[in-house]
Amino acid sequence: MSGRIRNHRMASKVVEADEAARLIPAGANVGMSGFTGAGYPKEVPGALAKRLAEANASGDPMRVSLWTGASTAPELDGALAEADGIELRLPYQSDPVSREKINSGAMDYTDIHLSHVAQRVWQGFLGPLDVAVVEISGITEDGRLIPSSSVGNNKTWIDQADRVILEVNSWQSEQLEGMHDIYYGTALPPHRNPIPLTEPGDRIGVPHLECPPEKVVAVVETESPDRNTVFKEPDEVSRMIAGHVLDFLGSEVRHGRLPQDLLPLQSGVGNVANAVLAGLGDGPFHELTAYTEVIQDGMLDLIDSGTLRTVSATAFSLSPAAVERFNNNAADYRERILLRPQEISNHPEVVRRLGCLAMNGIVEADIYGNINSTHMMGSRVQNGIGGSGDFARNAYTSIFVTPSTAKSGAISTIVPMVSHVDHTEHDVDVLVTEQGAADLRGLAPRQRARKIIEHCAHPDFRPALRDYYERSLAGSHGGHTPHLLDESLSWHVKYLREGTMRA
Amino acid sequence: MSGRIRNHRMASKVVEADEAARLIPAGANVGMSGFTGAGYPKEVPGALAKRLAEANASGDPMRVSLWTGASTAPELDGALAEADGIELRLPYQSDPVSREKINSGAMDYTDIHLSHVAQRVWQGFLGPLDVAVVEISGITEDGRLIPSSSVGNNKTWIDQADRVILEVNSWQSEQLEGMHDIYYGTALPPHRNPIPLTEPGDRIGVPHLECPPEKVVAVVETESPDRNTVFKEPDEVSRMIAGHVLDFLGSEVRHGRLPQDLLPLQSGVGNVANAVLAGLGDGPFHELTAYTEVIQDGMLDLIDSGTLRTVSATAFSLSPAAVERFNNNAADYRERILLRPQEISNHPEVVRRLGCLAMNGIVEADIYGNINSTHMMGSRVQNGIGGSGDFARNAYTSIFVTPSTAKSGAISTIVPMVSHVDHTEHDVDVLVTEQGAADLRGLAPRQRARKIIEHCAHPDFRPALRDYYERSLAGSHGGHTPHLLDESLSWHVKYLREGTMRA
Ligand SMILES: CC(C)(COP(=O)(O)OP(=O)(O)OC[C@H]1O[C@@H](n2cnc3c(N)ncnc32)[C@H](O)[C@@H]1OP(=O)(O)O)[C@@H](O)C(=O)NCCC(=O)NCCS
Ligand SMILES: CC(C)(COP(=O)(O)OP(=O)(O)OC[C@H]1O[C@@H](n2cnc3c(N)ncnc32)[C@H](O)[C@@H]1OP(=O)(O)O)[C@@H](O)C(=O)NCCC(=O)NCCS
Repeated sequence: MSGRIRNHRMASKVVEADEAARLIPAGANVGMSGFTGAGYPKEVPGALAKRLAEANASGDPMRVSLWTGASTAPELDGALAEADGIELRLPYQSDPVSREKINSGAMDYTDIHLSHVAQRVWQGFLGPLDVAVVEISGITEDGRLIPSSSVGNNKTWIDQADRVILEVNSWQSEQLEGMHDIYYGTALPPHRNPIPLTEPGDRIGVPHLECPPEKVVAVVETESPDRNTVFKEPDEVSRMIAGHVLDFLGSEVRHGRLPQDLLPLQSGVGNVANAVLAGLGDGPFHELTAYTEVIQDGMLDLIDSGTLRTVSATAFSLSPAAVERFNNNAADYRERILLRPQEISNHPEVVRRLGCLAMNGIVEADIYGNINSTHMMGSRVQNGIGGSGDFARNAYTSIFVTPSTAKSGAISTIVPMVSHVDHTEHDVDVLVTEQGAADLRGLAPRQRARKIIEHCAHPDFRPALRDYYERSLAGSHGGHTPHLLDESLSWHVKYLREGTMRA
Repeated sequence: MSGRIRNHRMASKVVEADEAARLIPAGANVGMSGFTGAGYPKEVPGALAKRLAEANASGDPMRVSLWTGASTAPELDGALAEADGIELRLPYQSDPVSREKINSGAMDYTDIHLSHVAQRVWQGFLGPLDVAVVEISGITEDGRLIPSSSVGNNKTWIDQADRVILEVNSWQSEQLEGMHDIYYGTALPPHRNPIPLTEPGDRIGVPHLECPPEKVVAVVETESPDRNTVFKEPDEVSRMIAGHVLDFLGSEVRHGRLPQDLLPLQSGVGNVANAVLAGLGDGPFHELTAYTEVIQDGMLDLIDSGTLRTVSATAFSLSPAAVERFNNNAADYRERILLRPQEISNHPEVVRRLGCLAMNGIVEADIYGNINSTHMMGSRVQNGIGGSGDFARNAYTSIFVTPSTAKSGAISTIVPMVSHVDHTEHDVDVLVTEQGAADLRGLAPRQRARKIIEHCAHPDFRPALRDYYERSLAGSHGGHTPHLLDESLSWHVKYLREGTMRA
């Protein structure tokens, strides 16, 4: 019995990954742990992928549907997609192999608001959850499960699955025990009650996951690290974006619209978001809180520097260096960090109540402030909407950030009309590029257009945007949101034909 | 002192409407009561419109910004727009004159989720609220205000305004007293607490509006009726839509995904929504509840027939015949009806907790299930998003309904790509036309397209939709949401050129 499995009955269920993977039937709905490259199972997915690939090669095809918390890692999403083993994938992914399969039509992908996943599974129309495969960092004497570096949908997977396969990962810090807050108070309507959380640091649940032991059909041991990708050092563009965000927040404080210690921060995934966090560390703010999805390197820095006093999230997403720092001081961080199920970290009720300041990255925005977070040229999905809708709709102030150009300047991220909409103008308060910030609050579409073009668009693209807008004003069917529909997507069409949006 | 004004101090403030209107300064932000044609001030707006028109004619132009609950009536929105007296209008309107002014560029209009309005005004970036003009049905001995046929944002207007003008309307039933539930527990973050509402019928506030008497600068008396438009008798198309909605709900109950008495209903504005309610009266359901914005005729029928036991809303929207029925039995209806501020009737926290079944009308949907609720041909605003986003995003099940064609069949309401997005695919569970229902839950975009085309589109337009979709599958940049961007809006372009989407 390894030191991490302190319960005898559970210890007796230890098997090799291959054996565990054989317990997953063809066509199963499988719920796996994992959120932004943290806390995903490391062994069973590979063994399952091998089985699926062999079956597919032998002419007796086999696939499963894969449900997760959010994105995972090459060893999970990559391996299963490579094996052509995924029928349907939900709710968020960012894996390059999966992306290819989805966009080639070989794999179906259902992109869902992250706060909606648990209730949709409970609701039942996705079918039964056959097997859960969940990474944990240990099992207590009395059989409770100590979560690892993400919580995601693990509570739901364990509650809903017919069978549970556990991966006990001794690479994860033992000090994680006590950091999690698993809320068991959710229910389906008409049995729902208020979620009793009024501060980011409130503990409303228990530190362990509960699982009836008879459900556990296999326990697999591993000591493999999380994915842990390195962040790009903030470049000049990211630093300028961060500067504009800080200026906006500072001005809100000066106008008495935000308290000195702001409101709980939410910060999206990606390099730009990480750079904004780095910028906050240099800013005038102290004793802040975060109520967010993911803890990136930047958040850890802010805790170290005293800028952040409490962070609530559902997962880590750290570079290898930051993981080492975390693992060496996990007991200290435990005083300041809570990991919750994603139905709570992203819950509209809580995000609205706390009044989060939401900051998320985008693919493109249009001159009226509609946002595309997911689809390149309107059709090719990049990652997915993730939790951005949970936060943007319910935030106290919803900020979106992006460089003003992409692909070495060939693409303007400010376009006449977005090629896909994930967030409508109603959920976009402030748009920020390295060129500046457009405060869109309270503005009508025509006012928004002028502000976005002059404050956010790259100067190279401003004349063409002004030209489109002026001609739309004159020639549009209706003048509330002026558009020339035979031209509104022509920038994308041009890019697809010529590889550039430039004239 | 009229019977409706039972407080001496308030009675001493009674003036004519002209005099009251003169208390509204040029350039003011004015918050008026009114929601879907109920409970709007009947006298002061007309007097104000006269003043504005005279000022504008005399070459000394004068305008105000108009904030309301939602749509009002010709005597308010129509009169002020006609006088060219509105600088900025928020958050929802449906007035024909305003619509023309907005779409001609003469008037700015900021369309806001109805649950967001109160917090945005408190937040302060819209500027101060200078004057509130609020209809009430009476004033108690101790100076509390008895609301009338809508609550809307009245609590916020009274709390926030520097000066308050009251219109006491003795046309409104005296029996309204006690029907309202005004919740005074909201706050700005970080001071927010859970909203203690777990059943549609829960009373969490007080029946009166509170207003410091020194704020009241004028009281105007009136006995004019609410707008009260007649609903169209449900036609064959509406009846078929209602039938498909009922079939869906019945099937959910049979599958154990909904309780026998369903979950709280939300029903949008318009004739189709009213027809669905009529259909419910013929259905197998009893003892239902509604947690919705507006009480239309259909809801009153359902209360009378025992189908509905409790309705929570923020306003009435009744035909003249239904108003008479209501006014004659207001004391009885008071047992079953509650009117709340719109920040509570539409609150994401409450809508999500209760698990509302949302049913809303649309302008058009695309083959992937994105919804346009507001813009004709992508540019001409019809009404606004209203509360549809509050409900669709947070509902247990979000249903959208529309006839499959408009303008005598020249327009397909199912198009390759919507010309404007108000609700993304993520917030659309079921799409219903007279042709049938497409249950989109859990489906990937390519699966959605097939279902929407085959179940919802009009047979005349199906071949062209299939053709677009098949060619997109083959020729799209990315295959997740296949599109041909140089064609995706061509149906709208054709309609604008030729007056029809037909080949
Ligand atoms: C939108 C999103 C992809 C941006 O991520 P990022 O790391 O900040 O963005 P980058 O600038 O590195 O762009 C990523 C890629 O998209 C490309 N890109 C960016 N904008 C583009 C545009 N308008 N058109 C085409 N490609 C574009 C970049 O060139 C880059 O491509 P590469 O990987 O081939 O170099 C990311 O924020 C996301 O997935 N968001 C949706 C989910 C979300 O918001 N989650 C947080 C909620 S808590
Ligand atoms: C979308 C909406 C306008 C539909 O209302 P409705 O009464 O059910 O719809 P109708 O079928 O009567 O259509 C209204 C008009 O739009 C026209 N129309 C409908 N679909 C159209 C389309 N796709 N293209 C162009 N015109 C269209 C109709 O022909 C009709 O025009 P007319 O007045 O000139 O005859 C209405 O539901 C709305 O404003 N919704 C947004 C707000 C909302 O959902 N509120 C409820 C939240 S609680």
